[in-house]
Amino acid sequence: MLEFKILKKSKKSKARVGILKTEHGLVETPTLVPVATQGTVKALTNEEVLGTKTQILIANTYHLHLKPGEDIVKKGGGLHKFMNWQAPLMTDSGGFQVFSLGFGQDYGMGKLLKEKSDAEVVIGQQPKLLKITPDGVWFRSIVDGRKIFMGPKESMKIQETLGADIIFAFDECTPPIADHEYTKKSLLKTHRWAEICLKEKKNKKQALFGIVQGGKFKDLRIESAKFIGSLPFDGFGIGGEFGDDKKIMEKMIGWVNSELPEEKPRHLLGIGHPEDIIPIIKAGVDTFDCTAPTHYARRGIAFTSKGRVDLRKSAFAKDQKPVDKNCDCPVCRDYTRSYIHHLLKAREITPLRLLSFHNLYFFNSFIEKVREDIKNGKI
Amino acid sequence: MLEFKILKKSKKSKARVGILKTEHGLVETPTLVPVATQGTVKALTNEEVLGTKTQILIANTYHLHLKPGEDIVKKGGGLHKFMNWQAPLMTDSGGFQVFSLGFGQDYGMGKLLKEKSDAEVVIGQQPKLLKITPDGVWFRSIVDGRKIFMGPKESMKIQETLGADIIFAFDECTPPIADHEYTKKSLLKTHRWAEICLKEKKNKKQALFGIVQGGKFKDLRIESAKFIGSLPFDGFGIGGEFGDDKKIMEKMIGWVNSELPEEKPRHLLGIGHPEDIIPIIKAGVDTFDCTAPTHYARRGIAFTSKGRVDLRKSAFAKDQKPVDKNCDCPVCRDYTRSYIHHLLKAREITPLRLLSFHNLYFFNSFIEKVREDIKNGKI
Repeated sequence: MLEFKILKKSKKSKARVGILKTEHGLVETPTLVPVATQGTVKALTNEEVLGTKTQILIANTYHLHLKPGEDIVKKGGGLHKFMNWQAPLMTDSGGFQVFSLGFGQDYGMGKLLKEKSDAEVVIGQQPKLLKITPDGVWFRSIVDGRKIFMGPKESMKIQETLGADIIFAFDECTPPIADHEYTKKSLLKTHRWAEICLKEKKNKKQALFGIVQGGKFKDLRIESAKFIGSLPFDGFGIGGEFGDDKKIMEKMIGWVNSELPEEKPRHLLGIGHPEDIIPIIKAGVDTFDCTAPTHYARRGIAFTSKGRVDLRKSAFAKDQKPVDKNCDCPVCRDYTRSYIHHLLKAREITPLRLLSFHNLYFFNSFIEKVREDIKNGKI
Repeated sequence: MLEFKILKKSKKSKARVGILKTEHGLVETPTLVPVATQGTVKALTNEEVLGTKTQILIANTYHLHLKPGEDIVKKGGGLHKFMNWQAPLMTDSGGFQVFSLGFGQDYGMGKLLKEKSDAEVVIGQQPKLLKITPDGVWFRSIVDGRKIFMGPKESMKIQETLGADIIFAFDECTPPIADHEYTKKSLLKTHRWAEICLKEKKNKKQALFGIVQGGKFKDLRIESAKFIGSLPFDGFGIGGEFGDDKKIMEKMIGWVNSELPEEKPRHLLGIGHPEDIIPIIKAGVDTFDCTAPTHYARRGIAFTSKGRVDLRKSAFAKDQKPVDKNCDCPVCRDYTRSYIHHLLKAREITPLRLLSFHNLYFFNSFIEKVREDIKNGKI
């Protein structure tokens, strides 16, 4: 069950404000979907996450399949109950991890992937792709080395067992270095798998999003958006790995969203640094997941109204100001940069939690303002 | 300023219920004093610590002197404001760390000290004692290797700059292997330093506690309690390092408390595992600091009404029960052992916070019950 209602459209761009109605409550869009890779937003409890104005989370099918396994999650009453998150929840399909972690390692892309996956990936410990078959992928578990097969049927089964409100079709995420020939071949497989996922889906309470791929190629992106957009999905994911090429990314979203049905929600997978947010919303994206707020927090970096601030730097040792003087979160109300700098230098756990909270609050407040601006015709 | 009022004395033991009135509020005794070594209770924010029924914290003069340095804390408005803890606060004198970390290393006692100090001590990185002089101790900073001198005057100055409500006289903490001769010599120094600390104290808002030493020797303990107890301290610390010899410890507290003035508060330094709590309270201890709740939490171990539970063990993978079914803390209300086991195995930060919260709440609730039992004449 998923309803999506567009409340207001921008006249100057494709931006829109909407309401997603899920089994576990409402989500006002556009919104960030913070990442709870292994069933928790790193360094925070789920009550704290609610305090950051977070409306919806995305957890990771690949990681939860390997550990603790979907059967244990089911025994715990499903993912919502297992992780004590009674608000809306997504799981991704596992495609991104299975492919790009393996591919990324083969092509020396560990650093890029480390930045993006928030999975505490250690170079050399990514799953090695063993074999791609027409039905899916064989890979080795990083947990215990056993061979694991994942394809559209398996991903659907796992995601249904996990029980999130919104689940994604299993796809192949092509890397930025893939050429037209490889990307086209891969796309046909992703399309076929999308149809299998639709057929396999049994739980009517869950909404299924199809994923548009096609790399950096306009013809393939349009072909994919037309094909996936024509299938009876509840919404759409826009996938892909672009490295740092933000211009290609913005163009690509434009191509895709021109083809996707306007009345259905669109999720951009794995993108959403502060500088990306307004462009992707203007390009018509409703939801997007990004690990940046928590990833950078754990490295001592705060996002603020004046840009990124690396609180490990000695310049902040005596700084009595809050992390961001324009932020009204409890961390900025109660703590100074000087104190957080000290705790980071002292290798305490507490500052990781403080900065994770602030960063999520900062992102969510920023996007709240964007929603207001769309409603008021300013965007 | 410190007032101590005994509300109820046990008829069967030396246990008593009292109220400590400090510049930053009241403390009902007996109570645990959780440890905020470097200005934070590890893995928790200070609002969370208040939620665990904690009434008072103890921070570490030695650690805060090395990092960030008391001048930075003063710039932040003193330790209460710096760490955003507006409730009662102690600092220890630094004596324990300066001596026993150095001594511990020389005598291969790293493990023992690691267990006790909660200072994330890495073997081989303890401060090496360079020289003991009649005025104090030269040692090397573990932060930057520079030579640092600390004696009673220095400790008092640092503690006054930090600005806690209750501060401790600088002492030498003798190790359990010290013989009578060494311990006696050390004791005379500790006593002389106690007098210096009393003379050096300038801030009338702070309360100064003298520390009783004397190792495992009855004559020395009684001598020390008589001497320190005769000085105009606001209260008393009972120091010493006993390793696992709990029987000696209990006897020692008995010797000391028979000599100390009854109407003044008594703090037992660095002791307080669950099995110790009732014996030390019965022996007349009012407050005691112990890192066990947070130390064990970060290793995946919960304290419960049925004893310690190591949640890393695979036996808990599918356990749908709360950490402790007799506990009414939010962690036990919201999370299962299965979920916390998963997060520990997944090396997340969140479970360290969940267990730190539960463990502190468990200790504080247990002691709350002990206070009730004393009031009701059950102890």
